[in-house]
Amino acid sequence: MTKALAGLKLLDVSRVLTGPYCTMVMADLGADVIKIEVPGRGDDSRQFGPFANGESGYYMTLNRNKRSLTLDLRRPEGQAVLKDLAVWADILVENFAAGTMDQWGLGYDHLAALNPRLVYVSITGFGQYGPYAGRFAFDAIAQATGGLMSITGQKGGPPTRVGTALGDINAGNFAAIGLLAALYQRERTGRGQHIDISMQDCIAAILENAVVRYTIDGVVPGRLGSAHATVGPYDVFPASDGYVFIACANEATWQRLCAAMGQPGLTADPRFAANRDRIGHIDELTALITSWSGGHSVADLLAILGDNDVPAAPVFTVEQVVNDPHIKARNMMVTVGHPVAGPVTIPGNPIKMSAAEDTIERPAPLLGQHTDEILAALGYSAAKIAALKEAQIV
Amino acid sequence: MTKALAGLKLLDVSRVLTGPYCTMVMADLGADVIKIEVPGRGDDSRQFGPFANGESGYYMTLNRNKRSLTLDLRRPEGQAVLKDLAVWADILVENFAAGTMDQWGLGYDHLAALNPRLVYVSITGFGQYGPYAGRFAFDAIAQATGGLMSITGQKGGPPTRVGTALGDINAGNFAAIGLLAALYQRERTGRGQHIDISMQDCIAAILENAVVRYTIDGVVPGRLGSAHATVGPYDVFPASDGYVFIACANEATWQRLCAAMGQPGLTADPRFAANRDRIGHIDELTALITSWSGGHSVADLLAILGDNDVPAAPVFTVEQVVNDPHIKARNMMVTVGHPVAGPVTIPGNPIKMSAAEDTIERPAPLLGQHTDEILAALGYSAAKIAALKEAQIV
Repeated sequence: MTKALAGLKLLDVSRVLTGPYCTMVMADLGADVIKIEVPGRGDDSRQFGPFANGESGYYMTLNRNKRSLTLDLRRPEGQAVLKDLAVWADILVENFAAGTMDQWGLGYDHLAALNPRLVYVSITGFGQYGPYAGRFAFDAIAQATGGLMSITGQKGGPPTRVGTALGDINAGNFAAIGLLAALYQRERTGRGQHIDISMQDCIAAILENAVVRYTIDGVVPGRLGSAHATVGPYDVFPASDGYVFIACANEATWQRLCAAMGQPGLTADPRFAANRDRIGHIDELTALITSWSGGHSVADLLAILGDNDVPAAPVFTVEQVVNDPHIKARNMMVTVGHPVAGPVTIPGNPIKMSAAEDTIERPAPLLGQHTDEILAALGYSAAKIAALKEAQIV
Repeated sequence: MTKALAGLKLLDVSRVLTGPYCTMVMADLGADVIKIEVPGRGDDSRQFGPFANGESGYYMTLNRNKRSLTLDLRRPEGQAVLKDLAVWADILVENFAAGTMDQWGLGYDHLAALNPRLVYVSITGFGQYGPYAGRFAFDAIAQATGGLMSITGQKGGPPTRVGTALGDINAGNFAAIGLLAALYQRERTGRGQHIDISMQDCIAAILENAVVRYTIDGVVPGRLGSAHATVGPYDVFPASDGYVFIACANEATWQRLCAAMGQPGLTADPRFAANRDRIGHIDELTALITSWSGGHSVADLLAILGDNDVPAAPVFTVEQVVNDPHIKARNMMVTVGHPVAGPVTIPGNPIKMSAAEDTIERPAPLLGQHTDEILAALGYSAAKIAALKEAQIV
C-alpha cells in the first residue's frame, strides 16, 4: 500500500477523543502512530460502549491503524522512555490539562531541547494562554462556550448540542492542519514548534456568517431549526416514514414545487408570491408543505420532487448511511477484523487521494500490544524491557 | 511576519463556502492564494448579506488574506490564462460539479500534464465517483445524507441542521488536511496528485460512536437534545437570563450538585441514587433541576456550581463569544480594515503556532483587485493584459 504520510512518526500521548481523532486522521494517511496508554488500564475510552466481546467500539473507531505502548508518565523511568521516543518522533500530540506535561518534565521546551525538529501539538478546552487557560472542558462545554449551541436547535426551543462530539472532532481536525503546516515549515527551517489548539477557538472559527450578522448588523443570531433565515421554503419536512429536506432558492423552483404538490394554483397566492412573501408567511407555508409531504413516503417524495427538478434529499438515519450504496462504493464504511471483537464496521477515511490508498490497514490495538516491538526498536535490551515491565513502568 | 505556509502558491477556483473555507485556512497560514472570480460579478457570495457599505460580510469572512483575479473560465483565452497559473501553482482547489473542469480542458489530467507537481483538490457534494457522483448538493443536503441531521435535535422533535454550514466547512477542513498530506508526499515523490473530497463522506467520517452503536448493537441512534445517552444529569438547563450546561459524570459530582441546589436530601431519593437510576428517571430529574436553575441568573448559577465543584459552562450567544475576554485574548475575533466596508470584525485563525504568527494580514479583496499584478507577474505584457480586459476575459 502507498500512503501520503508513510514514514512520518507520531507519538500520541492523548486520550479519549480530540487528540485521538487528530492522530486517527494522521494514521489513516499512513503515519506510524504510537499511542501511549496507562499501564493496566489504557485509554479511558476502552471503557466506553458499545462493546463487541468486551472490546470498546468507541475505542476501536478512533484508534485503528495505531500501535499501543503502555507507559507510566507519572514516574521518572516512564518519562525517560517518553524522552527516547520524542527523539524518534516527528510529531507529539497531547491533550492533558495545560501545564501537566511541563510538570512531568515533558513540556515542549524539555522535548525540543532533545529534538529541535519535533512538532509538539497541545489540544485543550481553552488553550495554553488567556484568562480561561487552566479551565477544564469537554465537548459540550466547547460547543456551549464557542457559540455553536446557541444557534443550533428549533426556533423557540433550547440551545442544542450537535449530535456528535464536534467540539472535540473539529479541534482534532484543526490540530491536524496545524501540524502538517508545521511540517511544511520545518522543511524550510529545520525546526519544529509548539502548536496550541483550543476547542473553544475552533468552534468560534466555524461560526461562519453568524459572526458578521452580529458585528455588522448588530443582530444576535438565534435558532432556526433546519430553516434558512432569508430563503424559503428551505427546511426539513416529514414524510410518512421519515424526513426529506426541500430547498427552493428561487422563484422558478417554487413554481416547480407547487406543480410537484399538485397545487399549481398556489403560485398565484399573494402570501407566497415572492421569496420575501414566503419568508413573511413561513409558518403557514411550512404547514401547507407538511400537510402534503406527510401523506407520502420518502421514496415517493424524492421521486416526485426529482421529476419536477426541485432540490431535495433524504434525511438519512445512521442505519441508512451505513448501508448507503454510495457510501459503500466510496469505502466510507470499513469492516475491520479485530482479534477479540471479530469484524466491526467503522467509518472510513474521507480523504481520497489518487496517489495513495484509503484503506484501513489494521484494527485498533490491544492494550500494550506493541510494547515489546517499540521498545526493542528503540534499542532497549530484553533485560531492560523486562525490568520496565517488572516495575510496571510499561 | 512569519507564517508556516509562506511561499506556498495556491490557485483557488472555488466559490461560496467549502472551497473558500479550505483556502481561507491555507491563506491564514501564509499561503499566497489567488482567487479566480467571474468577471463583472465575482463569487456568488459577494451578493450574500450582511452588507457593510455594500460589501458582503459573508464574502469578507471567507476571503481575507486572498488576492482576486477575474477570469472567464468558459472561454479558451481564459482557460489559457488558468493553464499558465497552474504551472505557477503548488495547489489548485475547485468545487465545480464533477466533470465541469474536465469539460473546460482544466481537469486534473490536463493540468498535471503541464505541472506534474500540482496538487489538485476537488470538493463536491458526493465526490468524483460512486452512484451519486453527478448529484448536486449543498450544506444542508450533506448534513442530511451524511446522517448528522438525524442525530441532532430534541428528543421527539424533527432532525435539525447544525446552525452553521458544517457540511461545507467540515469538508473544507478535510480538504486542507488532504492537500497538506499530499505536499508531504510530494517532497518524497516529486509528484502531485488529485484529491477527491465528498461532503457526504466527510459528515459520515465525524459520526463518531453513532456508527458502532448501530453496527455493534443494532441500535439506530436518535436525537437526544443536548443530553447524554447514558450519563445524567448532562444537559443544558435554563437560567433566568440564558442557559447553562451542567454535567455530572459520577456520583460525587451528583452529590455536590444536590448541595449546590440546596437540596442535600435528594441524594437519598432512590429515583436518583445511582447514575442508572437517574437515567431511568431523567425527565423527572430534568424538571427538578430546571425548577431550580430557572430561578437564578447564569452568573449566579456558574458561581454556585463553581463553588461546589460541579462542571458547568455558560451557553454563549454569538454576541457573548465575540466579546468574550478569553476569545479576545486569543486573537479569535479580528477587526480588519476594508477599503470600502471600513473596519469589520471576523473570526480569527484558531491554529496558534509558536514559530508563526496568527495575524490576518489583509482584508478580502475587491473584485479583480489584483488582476494586473498577477498577470504581470506571469510575464504578460501590458498590451496582452489590456487585450484580455478589452475582450472581458479578465
